[in-house]
Amino acid sequence: MGIETIAWANGKIRLLDQTRLPGETVYLELSHYQQMIEAIQRLRIRGAPALGVAAAYGLVLGLQGRTFHDRQDFLAKVDEVAQALLHSRPTAVNIGWALKRMRQVAEAIEDVDQAVAILLSEARRIQSEDVEANRSIGRFGAALLPDGATVLTHCNTGTLATAGYGTALGVIRAAVEQGKKIHVLATETRPLLQGARLTAWELVQDGIPATLITDSMAGHLMAGGTVTCALVGADRIAANGDTANKIGTYTLAVLAKEHRIPFYVAAPTSTIDLSKASGADIPIEERSPEEVTRFGGILTAPAGIQARNPAFDVPPARYIAAIITNEGVAKKPYRRALERLVGAKDGR
Amino acid sequence: MGIETIAWANGKIRLLDQTRLPGETVYLELSHYQQMIEAIQRLRIRGAPALGVAAAYGLVLGLQGRTFHDRQDFLAKVDEVAQALLHSRPTAVNIGWALKRMRQVAEAIEDVDQAVAILLSEARRIQSEDVEANRSIGRFGAALLPDGATVLTHCNTGTLATAGYGTALGVIRAAVEQGKKIHVLATETRPLLQGARLTAWELVQDGIPATLITDSMAGHLMAGGTVTCALVGADRIAANGDTANKIGTYTLAVLAKEHRIPFYVAAPTSTIDLSKASGADIPIEERSPEEVTRFGGILTAPAGIQARNPAFDVPPARYIAAIITNEGVAKKPYRRALERLVGAKDGR
Repeated sequence: MGIETIAWANGKIRLLDQTRLPGETVYLELSHYQQMIEAIQRLRIRGAPALGVAAAYGLVLGLQGRTFHDRQDFLAKVDEVAQALLHSRPTAVNIGWALKRMRQVAEAIEDVDQAVAILLSEARRIQSEDVEANRSIGRFGAALLPDGATVLTHCNTGTLATAGYGTALGVIRAAVEQGKKIHVLATETRPLLQGARLTAWELVQDGIPATLITDSMAGHLMAGGTVTCALVGADRIAANGDTANKIGTYTLAVLAKEHRIPFYVAAPTSTIDLSKASGADIPIEERSPEEVTRFGGILTAPAGIQARNPAFDVPPARYIAAIITNEGVAKKPYRRALERLVGAKDGR
Repeated sequence: MGIETIAWANGKIRLLDQTRLPGETVYLELSHYQQMIEAIQRLRIRGAPALGVAAAYGLVLGLQGRTFHDRQDFLAKVDEVAQALLHSRPTAVNIGWALKRMRQVAEAIEDVDQAVAILLSEARRIQSEDVEANRSIGRFGAALLPDGATVLTHCNTGTLATAGYGTALGVIRAAVEQGKKIHVLATETRPLLQGARLTAWELVQDGIPATLITDSMAGHLMAGGTVTCALVGADRIAANGDTANKIGTYTLAVLAKEHRIPFYVAAPTSTIDLSKASGADIPIEERSPEEVTRFGGILTAPAGIQARNPAFDVPPARYIAAIITNEGVAKKPYRRALERLVGAKDGR
């Protein structure tokens, strides 16, 4: 695909504004880290792995052009910018993961005049490693998709959600690249329609056969017997395997269990947060009710109605058949398997 | 409520155009039965009981002003109009039920000069009986809602879906009238947003506390432990209790089972179709994919993406804790209970 979700170019961040897709392909140029915070909060960029890359570049943007009196002053400024970026969205762990990694690199910097260049290099490494991680996820996951499979997916987990290729959508891409015939059932993913706007757009561009459905149709189609498996991404995976992902994921997991359909999660090991014992410890972002009472900018509900808008939910580990990572496929019991996969990465 | 969903006035049908709600309150005047078919197909009027009333008035409109040479000619014209109305939408049984009832009255007419007046009188009776039926459903159903309940409902089952008061929403209204504190969780009901546009509008007008959610949030909220029961309407109930209702109902029934939350169906006995042994025999309408790929005329998905749009699904009887009718509450095994309730009506 010729899409570049995010890139560093000429001292600025070039960002594809995902809120304008699929109608318009608009690239933004960000020159201040507050613009990155706005872009994250408004979902101009979204998807846990992409948010890690965005946070890393955002940190560079927030340090660029500033004067550092000494290492202490430099690290204080790193922390000031990182704190602001960290609180832009609470659920995806990748923002915190990337900032922590950038902080570790910052701590080791001795010559503060070189600091921005070194951090930019690290941000670029985070980006390129994510593409590699997705390719690995694809290879591991494709083995789970039989030829002829109909794969139900939710939200967007493709190039647009990552540094490139995708997590769950990367698994689908890898299976297709292996010559398997795959049909994708893509849920539209209310309220912000990432499935309809972004996943459908990526699938049409790639020529992968796909059918768009409303979120409410998943159960009916599973009951009809035509769904081979469900395959989703993750915003944060707790140590026990409980997985926070886009609202509606929990419902799909329950439906998959009821219909004895395997329910797979695909994510890089950077999405695993061993510091959270279970899903109950993962913060769930509650977004503006206006995203629910409006549709494409048009008010669809009467004035005076309340609305809820939790952006994520957390299917418990017991519903998840496997967690596909760049280091291998975790199966139950997840605690040990996830520790091993995270350790494999750290140990390299 | 001061809403009149449908009325016969001055030789025409006055119809609230539900596609314009909640933004605009527009009444249409229909003077030809083809306009009623268009209104039914475009969902200007919808909801199984309301469709029964619409079909009955539509038949009168199709016969009004025409010349009948004799009884045979009259009945031929009845059948011609009835056939066209019958095929306007396939899933809700109430259209066929009302037309069959009108046909029986037509057969007994001896003076064809009186025919239209007699059929209009019968259509008005169908309408007033439906309001009465809903009041009875409300009384029977309210007993199942504990004080303080949070009731999850889907689509619109209120005044707008019926001749007045509502089925599932009528149960909620009756409980509120009895002084119970009820909080409604209303799903927006994609693709046509009857929950957001119509149910939320009725609840705001009635001052019943309510929260709007996307269809995808139901599982998350059930898992949170705050949902007391789910309560939906029906478009057709088979002899074994399998119930066709708005797409997404099946998913809610599975979720309710998983969370041990009672799942109730509320419908008049006119929605029970003993000629269908099970849900497998109920025809499911597949509507235009454009309802999924567009909203409010705006394309929300990329050109070239396929979409499915089944308008209904069928939770099997095993998921349903009780079917609340105007003749009483049916519990498992449903076949005998439903036969008894339908018989109770016929026997009166």
